Amino acid sequence: MHLHTCSINTATLGHRRPIEAVIEAVARHGFGGIAPWRRDLEGRSPKMVARRILDAGLGVSSFCRSTYLPAESATAFERNVEDNRRAIEAAADLGAMSFVMVVGGLPGSSKDLAGARQQVEEGCAALLEHARSLGVALALEPLHPMCAADRSCLSTLEQALDLCARLEPDGAAAAPAAGVIVDVYHCWWDPKVLEQIARAGRARRIVGFHVSDWLVPTRDLLMDRGMMGDGVIDLPLLRGAVERANYNGLVEIEIFSAGNWWTRPEDEVLATCAARMQSCC
Amino acid sequence: MHLHTCSINTATLGHRRPIEAVIEAVARHGFGGIAPWRRDLEGRSPKMVARRILDAGLGVSSFCRSTYLPAESATAFERNVEDNRRAIEAAADLGAMSFVMVVGGLPGSSKDLAGARQQVEEGCAALLEHARSLGVALALEPLHPMCAADRSCLSTLEQALDLCARLEPDGAAAAPAAGVIVDVYHCWWDPKVLEQIARAGRARRIVGFHVSDWLVPTRDLLMDRGMMGDGVIDLPLLRGAVERANYNGLVEIEIFSAGNWWTRPEDEVLATCAARMQSCC
Repeated sequence: MHLHTCSINTATLGHRRPIEAVIEAVARHGFGGIAPWRRDLEGRSPKMVARRILDAGLGVSSFCRSTYLPAESATAFERNVEDNRRAIEAAADLGAMSFVMVVGGLPGSSKDLAGARQQVEEGCAALLEHARSLGVALALEPLHPMCAADRSCLSTLEQALDLCARLEPDGAAAAPAAGVIVDVYHCWWDPKVLEQIARAGRARRIVGFHVSDWLVPTRDLLMDRGMMGDGVIDLPLLRGAVERANYNGLVEIEIFSAGNWWTRPEDEVLATCAARMQSCC
Repeated sequence: MHLHTCSINTATLGHRRPIEAVIEAVARHGFGGIAPWRRDLEGRSPKMVARRILDAGLGVSSFCRSTYLPAESATAFERNVEDNRRAIEAAADLGAMSFVMVVGGLPGSSKDLAGARQQVEEGCAALLEHARSLGVALALEPLHPMCAADRSCLSTLEQALDLCARLEPDGAAAAPAAGVIVDVYHCWWDPKVLEQIARAGRARRIVGFHVSDWLVPTRDLLMDRGMMGDGVIDLPLLRGAVERANYNGLVEIEIFSAGNWWTRPEDEVLATCAARMQSCC
């Protein structure tokens, strides 16, 4: 796998240095793209950061990520939608082709999962036209079911693709504005993963492909992702599936690892990512 | 909810005391059943334990649990199947109507999830007739996807019901020998949970209903289940669904909680279970 087809999600480096330094390091290690977070842009103009990224010869695989949509009050829900509208504008200014929708879980003390999912659908519907008009795809990212309560009530590719089809009928647009991110960490376990990747391909919905690995044991529900090759995910299987589904965008490396990789020097992390993309993916 | 319709899985008490003492305590607190583990029977005759349980006025909601099926060699796989055959005989001697199949995950250093699932299917097929002849149901328990690597490559009710239908066609028997356990902890997040519970009911496949709760945050993938009411699961919703699906067996309380409930006095845990079954379920 050529490194110029790979992108580094800035979370992989633990957000320890300013985005300018991270852009330089990612380019120096030979990667072809970067995926910044909103926090990376604080106090900066997205257009200036876009310039830096372009000058470094990098693409932007995605812009992370949405404010959670479900809320306990209509006012708070509207605020969340509005916040995401601004973030989609920043994504456009940044030159990102997609805005990552981590949709949120149960708001406050709610146990109403169906209600949260309904809010997600309404929020996405309210954002879709704005995203389309700016040329940014809403990249719905189903998260692992262990994140259903507090991060994402969107848990499977099937569910995300059903939602996409309700928001924007399959085949209605040559380049759909509602898409999905296939993140191996979140969907490797799913008995329907290959079938749903193929379905996503037919509907041209795959707007991102994220890699990392599932460690055994996993010691933390959020912060213990593994480096490619250190876990049990059959990465070539899933990569082959997204390729057969005609995804030809950047392969994004996103590793949350507070106890391990985030404690190591940035150059070591990037060099390891580069080596593993060639040996394990 | 009447306590005589509720059962205590002995894991809820942390396996701290001999089964004879646990039977006495569960009965004294007014529960209607118990679900012992194989470890509870070590050095004892299952028939003697069955007698104790009967004398205490309790039913046996299930017998826990299978040896993991997938293995790295054919010899080891056969040994796992044989081990489960013996355990099914113990389940029959114990008077359990079902034997809980926690099927296992990836064997050894394998990344072949499809292969593990194939082994599970072959193993269950090899066990089914034996179980049927002894009047014990094979109770396939899909575990939460976070357990897919190391405990259960059976992750959803849909997947488990598809497997049941391949093992034994829907409608082929008045009392199917292949069934499923609906455990709220494992399936509450699933967008298809209500649809699949209804499907399981139509095929008369529900052989167990387990309750506990999903805590936010969850600090451990295995040992941090919550007491009913302390988490985010809509227990009345799921209980209503299994009742509408004509499940009228015992409701089993199964809480793995190394850091909390297992450190508390047994009587406090049982009294709390009893109270919560009436206030939260």
